Amino acid sequence: MTTATAYESLEQRFARVRVLKDAAGILGWDAQAMMPVGAASSRAEQLALLRGLAHEALTSSEVFELLEATDAERSSLNPWQSANLREMRRAYVHAAALPAELVVAISKATSHAEMIWREARRTNDFALLLPHLKAVLDLQREAGQVKSEALGTSTYDALLDQYDPGLRQGRIDPLFDALRQELPALIAEALEFQDAASAPLPIKGHFPFEAQRALGETLMRAVGFDFNHGRLDISLHPFCGGASGDVRITTRYDEADFTRSLMGVLHETGHALYEQGRPAAWASQPVGQARGMTLHESQSLLIEMQACRSPEFLAYLSPLLTDAFGREDPAWSPENLHRVYTRVEPGFIRVDADEVTYPAHILLRYDLEKAMIAGDLPVADLPTAFNAGMKSLLGVTVTDDAQGCLQDIHWPSGAWGYFPTYTLGAIGAAQLFAAACAAEPNIRSALAGGDFGSLIGWLRTNVHEKGSLLDTDDLMVAATGEPLRLNAYRNHLRQRYLRQSWQSLASA
Amino acid sequence: MTTATAYESLEQRFARVRVLKDAAGILGWDAQAMMPVGAASSRAEQLALLRGLAHEALTSSEVFELLEATDAERSSLNPWQSANLREMRRAYVHAAALPAELVVAISKATSHAEMIWREARRTNDFALLLPHLKAVLDLQREAGQVKSEALGTSTYDALLDQYDPGLRQGRIDPLFDALRQELPALIAEALEFQDAASAPLPIKGHFPFEAQRALGETLMRAVGFDFNHGRLDISLHPFCGGASGDVRITTRYDEADFTRSLMGVLHETGHALYEQGRPAAWASQPVGQARGMTLHESQSLLIEMQACRSPEFLAYLSPLLTDAFGREDPAWSPENLHRVYTRVEPGFIRVDADEVTYPAHILLRYDLEKAMIAGDLPVADLPTAFNAGMKSLLGVTVTDDAQGCLQDIHWPSGAWGYFPTYTLGAIGAAQLFAAACAAEPNIRSALAGGDFGSLIGWLRTNVHEKGSLLDTDDLMVAATGEPLRLNAYRNHLRQRYLRQSWQSLASA
Repeated sequence: MTTATAYESLEQRFARVRVLKDAAGILGWDAQAMMPVGAASSRAEQLALLRGLAHEALTSSEVFELLEATDAERSSLNPWQSANLREMRRAYVHAAALPAELVVAISKATSHAEMIWREARRTNDFALLLPHLKAVLDLQREAGQVKSEALGTSTYDALLDQYDPGLRQGRIDPLFDALRQELPALIAEALEFQDAASAPLPIKGHFPFEAQRALGETLMRAVGFDFNHGRLDISLHPFCGGASGDVRITTRYDEADFTRSLMGVLHETGHALYEQGRPAAWASQPVGQARGMTLHESQSLLIEMQACRSPEFLAYLSPLLTDAFGREDPAWSPENLHRVYTRVEPGFIRVDADEVTYPAHILLRYDLEKAMIAGDLPVADLPTAFNAGMKSLLGVTVTDDAQGCLQDIHWPSGAWGYFPTYTLGAIGAAQLFAAACAAEPNIRSALAGGDFGSLIGWLRTNVHEKGSLLDTDDLMVAATGEPLRLNAYRNHLRQRYLRQSWQSLASA
Repeated sequence: MTTATAYESLEQRFARVRVLKDAAGILGWDAQAMMPVGAASSRAEQLALLRGLAHEALTSSEVFELLEATDAERSSLNPWQSANLREMRRAYVHAAALPAELVVAISKATSHAEMIWREARRTNDFALLLPHLKAVLDLQREAGQVKSEALGTSTYDALLDQYDPGLRQGRIDPLFDALRQELPALIAEALEFQDAASAPLPIKGHFPFEAQRALGETLMRAVGFDFNHGRLDISLHPFCGGASGDVRITTRYDEADFTRSLMGVLHETGHALYEQGRPAAWASQPVGQARGMTLHESQSLLIEMQACRSPEFLAYLSPLLTDAFGREDPAWSPENLHRVYTRVEPGFIRVDADEVTYPAHILLRYDLEKAMIAGDLPVADLPTAFNAGMKSLLGVTVTDDAQGCLQDIHWPSGAWGYFPTYTLGAIGAAQLFAAACAAEPNIRSALAGGDFGSLIGWLRTNVHEKGSLLDTDDLMVAATGEPLRLNAYRNHLRQRYLRQSWQSLASA
């Protein structure tokens, strides 16, 4: 009988942590999609216990000692094992950096602030949220400082690193600075281009949710979702969750308009394909997990924005709508679907924003959260700063905090350093899709037949099956020849919003 | 700051065990009702880990020491706390009695035998199951012996005690001996009485499952199910599961016949009401759990057999069927529903058996499992013994083990000592219903209006809210004036199957 190496012992411990997290993943899904309302507090206890057990297992002194002991074993590890060890260390550092009291304080403060936020948004009362948001910010700053010492980064970088390992402000700033320069003109031009064409016919009718669900499942199958390892359900806030090998996405249906739920399902399917495509042999280990939120969002936006808002896919979709809803309608001609799904309109709400104006919402939040973490923007001044930013970036005048700085749950819920990954994901999506189409020239035309095989095959090989083997930029270089950069994204937006019209496409 | 007493420390530990069990309860429900097939093995890991953690927490040396230390605190405990301590001890003894290797061996052998059983039943091949069933029996006997030493009981009594604390063979034998005497004549008389009346009109048509589900939910609400703390879903094998405060029942629908699923939903609702009615203040503690399988089955059978197959309830049900399925049909006149739902017909399959012949299936299994545990019946001789019993008790000739000793999952899955609780539950149901009707004379007539208020109120006070405060017989005495006995059950069967006809009821 041979003794397990320190590395092998770590694998066993991390596998156990993964099982606890997977159990919590299913219970978390259930809480959103299935749970009766009266079970909320007992579910919170179950989740707190499982997460606490995972945290304990991860931060035990044994794990620390085993990590130390792997120094002598490094030369015998293969590249996946080495990367796994690197990710184990990262997970340990993040978890162990925070004193237990701070973990509890953050958990309590965010639970409370989230609850108050719902009320504050409902009643448009920023003053109600203010002290709670301050408390959350103070704790986030404290957590960021403690982690920054462990990671050797700035405070804000330590927060970014929680959602996207290796992501740093210095990496984001040049990309976002360029966007900030270009975006107002792009929006203006896109609106001008759009105004020169006819407005879309409105989508009208009754679209029974069962028919929408059946259509959604058909499209999920077409894209490549594996229903042997996943489900589609309903929840108030759509998400992709569940566990390894059991990936569950949700949507909500509006029986007066199918368009939003339909693209929502495709968006979550992009997330789900990443989860279903992670390397099975490493499913229980840190290196087998998705690389971070930038790449995760790149996968959902690649499917939704790059593939499924393309004229090719919309041509495939059009007759499916006729089948699904039992009638023909000029509103779902390919041309009109294209107009509907590429409509640009500056507005107040981030989650309702179109592809062109969306980054403006992110640039604003990025600037504001950096300033708040740095202490340069007092939380009390957030509404003024938020509204000024909306005016300057999008030209809209916020008159109501519920439609302004109160709209998102992220800050009250403690997700600071998360917002930039949305737009980084959009940039990555364009870059990956361009590389995939260059490598497999039939990808676009295949979409017109609902055939995602080549596209997903390329993503499997170049993104999904890499798990956390590489850092984000290294993966981008391996997949596209370059680290994350704006070119493909800029080209995509210009092509779709400044040049493309249905006529030009149809004649191409 | 005061130090927690040993008793208080135990409460904290058992609350934690309960949270783990509740989490496992939801994940177990999900596995039957929601989980995609490909997630089975990872779900098994999650459940094994949670159950293992609960078992570890329950059998820790700290718990042992705290239980010892409570000796000095006994005088300060109130009756609920004393009963809770008694139940903590019982749970500890059951869990700690088994060496870890035996727990693992049982888990593996039963998982394997269950898998083989499915194949053996499908192919009608008892020889295939034989060695695996032997292995399970040997381990059950070993577990029973170890527990019998800890409990000071016989081996079989130790197995009974797992499902119904305090239940002993000496308590069952006199009841079952009397039944064994009376049952053949009762069945014969019931068939004769039935033959003298007209046969039921068959239920024919298409009954969309959505309509069946809506009707099921309506009936659940009428009975008193709280949808803020529970759900109704679909699974292959109907059950009542979930967690404290989140009680989930399932059914399956046959679109050609609503009758079985409808009563199945009402049966599970009976279980669910017990779970939803347990004492909330003690939800996290052993004393707050249901008392055992005899009382649990009494609650499902009280709702299904006593209340919902009564002529009064069927008169309430009849117009609801017209509403649910959008048409009138003489097959669901109250009179015909009564004939359908009280039809007696000796057959092979326990779960399909009517109320009168059902106990024969249990008497047989009780005798056989006692003999196998005692070593008096070699497993190889089970088919012969099973078939002889079916002939003698029910007059039917089994020609096919799949319809005989292979029909139930209980023995291969390690549930020995469980079968008798079905019929003890039926006996208890009759006794409790009779006592409830005596105490609240309007109960039967209220059922004709779909009003379960008085009945459920009585059950809440006399059964549900008692949790595990009392042993089963003590609870029966407190609720009905007598320990479990045959009188009310015998009266009920004679009244319904030898005297009652729709004519006599209608004129009454």
